[in-house]
Amino acid sequence: MSVTENEIVENVEWLAKNGADPAGGMTRLLFTKEWLAAQLALKQRFEEAGMVASFDEVGNLYGTYSGTDGSEDIIMTGSHVDTVIQGGKYDGALGVIGGFLAVKHLVEEYGRPKKNLTVISMAEEEGSRFPFVFWGSKNLVGSVPASEIADVVDPEGISFADAMRDCGFSLRTSPTSAADHMKAFVELHIEQGNTLEMEDIPVGVVNAIVGQRRYNITLKGEANHAGTTRMCYRHDVIQVFAEIVNRSLGKAVDEGDPLVLTFGHIEVVPNTVNVVPGDAMFTMDCRHTDRAALVRFTEQIEADMAEIAAEHGVEIEIDRWMDADPVPMDPAIVKCVESACKEVGVRYRVMHSGAGHDSQIIAPHIPTGMVFVRSVKGISHSPEEYTEPADLKEGIRTLGAALHALAY
Amino acid sequence: MSVTENEIVENVEWLAKNGADPAGGMTRLLFTKEWLAAQLALKQRFEEAGMVASFDEVGNLYGTYSGTDGSEDIIMTGSHVDTVIQGGKYDGALGVIGGFLAVKHLVEEYGRPKKNLTVISMAEEEGSRFPFVFWGSKNLVGSVPASEIADVVDPEGISFADAMRDCGFSLRTSPTSAADHMKAFVELHIEQGNTLEMEDIPVGVVNAIVGQRRYNITLKGEANHAGTTRMCYRHDVIQVFAEIVNRSLGKAVDEGDPLVLTFGHIEVVPNTVNVVPGDAMFTMDCRHTDRAALVRFTEQIEADMAEIAAEHGVEIEIDRWMDADPVPMDPAIVKCVESACKEVGVRYRVMHSGAGHDSQIIAPHIPTGMVFVRSVKGISHSPEEYTEPADLKEGIRTLGAALHALAY
Repeated sequence: MSVTENEIVENVEWLAKNGADPAGGMTRLLFTKEWLAAQLALKQRFEEAGMVASFDEVGNLYGTYSGTDGSEDIIMTGSHVDTVIQGGKYDGALGVIGGFLAVKHLVEEYGRPKKNLTVISMAEEEGSRFPFVFWGSKNLVGSVPASEIADVVDPEGISFADAMRDCGFSLRTSPTSAADHMKAFVELHIEQGNTLEMEDIPVGVVNAIVGQRRYNITLKGEANHAGTTRMCYRHDVIQVFAEIVNRSLGKAVDEGDPLVLTFGHIEVVPNTVNVVPGDAMFTMDCRHTDRAALVRFTEQIEADMAEIAAEHGVEIEIDRWMDADPVPMDPAIVKCVESACKEVGVRYRVMHSGAGHDSQIIAPHIPTGMVFVRSVKGISHSPEEYTEPADLKEGIRTLGAALHALAY
Repeated sequence: MSVTENEIVENVEWLAKNGADPAGGMTRLLFTKEWLAAQLALKQRFEEAGMVASFDEVGNLYGTYSGTDGSEDIIMTGSHVDTVIQGGKYDGALGVIGGFLAVKHLVEEYGRPKKNLTVISMAEEEGSRFPFVFWGSKNLVGSVPASEIADVVDPEGISFADAMRDCGFSLRTSPTSAADHMKAFVELHIEQGNTLEMEDIPVGVVNAIVGQRRYNITLKGEANHAGTTRMCYRHDVIQVFAEIVNRSLGKAVDEGDPLVLTFGHIEVVPNTVNVVPGDAMFTMDCRHTDRAALVRFTEQIEADMAEIAAEHGVEIEIDRWMDADPVPMDPAIVKCVESACKEVGVRYRVMHSGAGHDSQIIAPHIPTGMVFVRSVKGISHSPEEYTEPADLKEGIRTLGAALHALAY
């Protein structure tokens, strides 16, 4: 496939004109004027490339080269067009632009596909404007009921429904969707991690998206004078926290990949140099590609935490507020993407995704796979998000080869 | 000594009328109208009891029964009249009220003392209005130079000098002070800890005030995505913090009393559930009655911290911003207070103070000792600060017996 680095960079920069944030990076939030401008510009570009382009009711944009076999079967690629606040140019956008370039070059080089070949620019994935995620993919594979967004407002008090209507969109009411005819979905995305960089590999073939359990843990000990309270009379929540973190991270390292465990948030009361802290709240985030392993590991940690707190006479409350199952990618699509890597001649590794993606919403309904490209320093959700053009090209060529195998 | 619980409680409640905070507890800050009212009321009460009462230039109040031996020697008791914001009725105030009742009853029961017997109501100890501590005792044993308070302002921007002048006070300029003739100082104070309560003992005889070292410790690791960053590629500051706390508190417990070690403050960046934290700042507060032991222990902990940080590829900065020597009480005064306990027939233990007191400023200049009374639940600096009247009485009787031995 003859796609060039120049062409890729030009297209990435072209889309990034919509939502460039004066404070740095990209801010292209769902149903804003920057978002609408991006979707309309993409529609025009799709049409200029000879695609049939249209929106569904909720704001997803589809660009299609119709197939020669006359069936309604669709092979789809794409990703989301929205960004986080002050995000980068690649997260989501690469899957749309890279998907577009891949199918455009396929058609230029191989003529019309057998099956319908569609690029989707999904309306939303990040949850950055409204406290609601995966608006695009959830509406692709189903209909989000009105009740779920009835009370959803953005930080300025604008309701989801009003923002959507102002952009000309509404709730999905038609009984059919593109997903009814989808035979495969392949999403190109930046890795958003540093595994490929550490291993000096440009492309990842994703075989699963992790499951996650997230917790808020509250400790109630006893605040005491740091000078006059002997060590033996303390109920020190920082000591309990430290023992929990230590033991848990030790077990996480012993458990090994693909388990990851993070204590990202801690707040302490009164949080003063000369008082033994009496209250603390901290979070725990645990991810694994295997549901049974995730449950077994976190249940052990929950028991450890209770034991450690009890040893110190500290009360503990363990609130598990997120429990998302891992989502395996379709084995045939994984194999197809691996073959594409070999065909293209790119070094790759099979790997899981530690972050969430539209593919995890689509995969339970449609055979789905993902192609990762290396992220410099693993940085994402930041203006510093970057992938080398050479790696972008390898990812797009891999995607093109996979789509060719699926649609031609 | 015939002092009664009723008389003690009446006097404590009488003084507490000056500075009762509508939000709860006592707020009697240096050079406020509540503070001035308390000092003026005390002056009147001292005079009504037959004392000669006067202020020094900086706001310390002295009430004296002159001695019969014609010398200028002074035996002094007392404490500070100021409180923290929403503090209790006992911290500081007990030393003034209890000192007053002790000397008043001594004179009523034994007639005039041989040596001058003085109660001091020191202007300030807490540092609660201005960022300056021990104003009273520092001016008793020396003169605080004008330069040290030149830039000191309260949270409302009022300068120390203006607030002082508005109450009729100024910097100390006279070349002599009461301290020039002091032969002994004995301070009565609540314990502000729970050692006496835990051991069911009403009175403590203080033999030393702890030295303290306080630190700010800064960690710089790498913020990373909690899902996509494998455990082996992390530079997690929470992991480093937890190992430091764990190892240090373990060593503190092994070291045993009187060492105490506290990690009271922790802040983390970005402090979000799904990001491995990249930056942290925490505090360490270590106290011991023995200078050499304090230095040896903290130097070991400093080395441990650097080692743990290096193991995780995390940068560390260790800033020791407080290094106060322990202050031993005078052995002869300690023995005198112990004898007083035996004479009065009160159960007591010899112990150190883990908190700072005026006595630590006075002790390097004048033979000094302290009497502690039990604090309910060890609570202080709180509206819930409380000591049972029976314990107040035991403390005042002990103080009275000690002053009798010293002044008669």
